[in-house]
Amino acid sequence: MAKLEPMFETPYYAVVFASVRTPGDYGYSEMATRMVEMASSQPGFLGVDSAREEIGITVSYWRDLESIKRWKAEFEHKEAQRKGQESWYQSYTVRVARVEREYDFGL
Amino acid sequence: MAKLEPMFETPYYAVVFASVRTPGDYGYSEMATRMVEMASSQPGFLGVDSAREEIGITVSYWRDLESIKRWKAEFEHKEAQRKGQESWYQSYTVRVARVEREYDFGL
Repeated sequence: MAKLEPMFETPYYAVVFASVRTPGDYGYSEMATRMVEMASSQPGFLGVDSAREEIGITVSYWRDLESIKRWKAEFEHKEAQRKGQESWYQSYTVRVARVEREYDFGL
Repeated sequence: MAKLEPMFETPYYAVVFASVRTPGDYGYSEMATRMVEMASSQPGFLGVDSAREEIGITVSYWRDLESIKRWKAEFEHKEAQRKGQESWYQSYTVRVARVEREYDFGL
């Protein structure tokens, strides 16, 4: 059953990663699974919601900007970013945003 | 061809709407199309990225909190929110976040 991330204590940060894939896998699925595993063990990581259709959207939640900066600079993640531009993504956007308000239904 | 929203001038706001649907359509698709049309004509609306798989994620971008508040209170949108809880969504989360930093690749 699909499960959404719960509310976290505000303020915290959301990184909105929207992307358009190139055709073919080329190790993409394996990398994507590995990156979520790795991110989950980073200090300050809170959770992640993800969906892919024509475009993909992954929103990861973080306690503070420091945690995001550390994750961005992590060695294996940097390698994935490089390969992302080289082969997996046609285009992507990344937005770092401070969550100020939130509410939920039916969680 | 799938197209991502471009960068906007920071700071601005992102509303991250993540949801799990109930089975069946019950007018959902029509409502979803109509809400995007309506939101697009609201003052302060900048753009929207959307994807649905097991869960759906819609991220809409807005110039300021006032625009978001106005859209939340709009009559037909309020009706959609009510029906959403009544029949379309099993659960959802909404996060209002201030975009502070952004970058893109290949846009």
